[in-house]
Amino acid sequence: MDRDKILLTPGPLTTSLRTKLAMLRDWGSWDAEFNAVTAQVRRSLLAIVHGEDTHVVVPLQGSGTFSVEAAVATVVPRDGHVLVLDNGAYCKRAARLTSLMGRRCAVVDFGDHEPVSASVLDEQLKADASITHVVMIHCETGAGVLNPLQAVADTCAAHGKGLIVDAMSSFGALPIDARTTRFDALVAASGKCLEGVPGMGFVFLRKAILDSCAGQSQSLAMDLHDQYVYMEKTGQWRFTPPTHVVVALAEAIAQFEAEGGQPARLARYTANYRTLIDGMARLGFMPFLDPAVQAPIIVTFHAPGDPRYEFKAFYNAAKAHGFILYPGKLTQVETFRVGCIGAIGPGEIEQAVHAVELALQDMGIASGEPAI
Amino acid sequence: MDRDKILLTPGPLTTSLRTKLAMLRDWGSWDAEFNAVTAQVRRSLLAIVHGEDTHVVVPLQGSGTFSVEAAVATVVPRDGHVLVLDNGAYCKRAARLTSLMGRRCAVVDFGDHEPVSASVLDEQLKADASITHVVMIHCETGAGVLNPLQAVADTCAAHGKGLIVDAMSSFGALPIDARTTRFDALVAASGKCLEGVPGMGFVFLRKAILDSCAGQSQSLAMDLHDQYVYMEKTGQWRFTPPTHVVVALAEAIAQFEAEGGQPARLARYTANYRTLIDGMARLGFMPFLDPAVQAPIIVTFHAPGDPRYEFKAFYNAAKAHGFILYPGKLTQVETFRVGCIGAIGPGEIEQAVHAVELALQDMGIASGEPAI
Repeated sequence: MDRDKILLTPGPLTTSLRTKLAMLRDWGSWDAEFNAVTAQVRRSLLAIVHGEDTHVVVPLQGSGTFSVEAAVATVVPRDGHVLVLDNGAYCKRAARLTSLMGRRCAVVDFGDHEPVSASVLDEQLKADASITHVVMIHCETGAGVLNPLQAVADTCAAHGKGLIVDAMSSFGALPIDARTTRFDALVAASGKCLEGVPGMGFVFLRKAILDSCAGQSQSLAMDLHDQYVYMEKTGQWRFTPPTHVVVALAEAIAQFEAEGGQPARLARYTANYRTLIDGMARLGFMPFLDPAVQAPIIVTFHAPGDPRYEFKAFYNAAKAHGFILYPGKLTQVETFRVGCIGAIGPGEIEQAVHAVELALQDMGIASGEPAI
Repeated sequence: MDRDKILLTPGPLTTSLRTKLAMLRDWGSWDAEFNAVTAQVRRSLLAIVHGEDTHVVVPLQGSGTFSVEAAVATVVPRDGHVLVLDNGAYCKRAARLTSLMGRRCAVVDFGDHEPVSASVLDEQLKADASITHVVMIHCETGAGVLNPLQAVADTCAAHGKGLIVDAMSSFGALPIDARTTRFDALVAASGKCLEGVPGMGFVFLRKAILDSCAGQSQSLAMDLHDQYVYMEKTGQWRFTPPTHVVVALAEAIAQFEAEGGQPARLARYTANYRTLIDGMARLGFMPFLDPAVQAPIIVTFHAPGDPRYEFKAFYNAAKAHGFILYPGKLTQVETFRVGCIGAIGPGEIEQAVHAVELALQDMGIASGEPAI
């Protein structure tokens, strides 16, 4: 049977049929009805972080990385100095795009299996007064580490430094409260924990810094200040919006709110995560991270030590049993990743664990136990 | 009845149900099946311009403007000098994004109701040897003018200058042949004459200049050379692709090919255009452009001279009768625009003319005749 596979990937992920059905209509991007959808999405997004008083939210076409780049380009002055707190592949990408666009950029390396440290940041900020902005990733999906957003935000606030948060894979699932956590920009995207389809990002900008952002971006398409000003004036996007993606996100957010918002989503993903960890442990698999630093978003597992293991074959076998896994993104250790997010619950995760068991059997592998 | 309105807009436009239905599935962006869709789309796009021997095509997330900016950033060296042939709003946008990213940029102004001139370009290139690249827009939808692509390309070739073509609203409908028309980059997008949904662009890059593009972009997200190298190596997009938009484009291209490709599409749009022009003339409307320079893509009409006319009311009245029109984009003259493109034929255009007639009646306007 040709049933749709379930995606255990950190976005694109499995969305509900209701979300996808919203795409069966064409919308005029200039039309008042579409503007109302955009406005509703923006209101809902602001409410999720309780940012109505302190922040605005600016949607942007493209993948999440486009929005990260746009946030840096818009918020950091051309003579600014960015410090990236690096504990994974997406941090390295943030540093690369910052340097490429001509902003001075320093990186402090925390490895890939530990959270970044606010006290190390504090030392760095004391040691180098030229740093103007800090970039951190809330949940580093390279390995799946949860980073200490509140402590980092407090440290940046204490030093009077700007903070740009990549909350791509945490937004909507993990609590973020703009009333108590100070950030200049926070970035997420449609196709992650809100369970929309991929194709747009959005950036929360602190109202207090908004005016200073005018004219800082060297990219027209990625100028979030320009996008914001135009959207406030006209209700429209500056350039053609991905209309079907936007209405799918609106529909996904309606389901998010009906489910009970962020707390309910976190509860479901946590149940998914526990079901996954417990089930995989029964098969002998060992997670890469210490559970204390693991976000319930995506889990990195050590590859089985059995010499018959090879990721591609394992991936294809699991897929044949109905589930799409995700490759590892670590350079030193052989791993693979399993997402806990999307329009799925513990029932689907139980089935996924069973699919992994069958995949091991197909490959003649007795246990998921790693070599070490 | 709540029937879907027909969009007479230059993208987003009305797509077929078959195209939209392709979005009812979630795809893993890392999966071989999705990579196959990307590869098929790229092959088909290359075939449309007969560019298999001379060019590669690189898809990019975001709206068409993102791809225009990416083309300039990737193709023009940082010390390059761009000349924009300006006859409308989209030309001005191209000049603005070029200057913003730090490339030297000159503009030659041709007004907004005449095509750009290859002989004027020839003079400009003779007068200023520092110009390295020329930017032109094939069909300027600001007013709807068709620009002389072949003559401009020949002039650039004769002077050994690079040419970047924004073919956003012509690609797929008007003939473009990479074997006989020399361009370094040619840009279009999913949601235009291919009748896909909006959310991605694509850029044809001339193989002969490809290597020289490495490292020229100051934007990571918009580096088409990097996107190309990664895609060739892995079959994947560098950053999360808009999966649903990509599969919708694949489905739209399949219908494009089944219809008979570019010649068939041009024939249908030309029939749409003639039906529109004839019908609107019966109502007294006058097109803004000389028919000799008008592309059969989008038509700008003078606003009726009747003092009871007001665009917003006219728009809403036409919408109530089932059709979404498009505002004018000219600053000097009061106009509105009507698109001829999308998954519609002369039958729908006849109905649209009838809707315009009813809208005039609703407003108590006897004729579409302009004031001048």
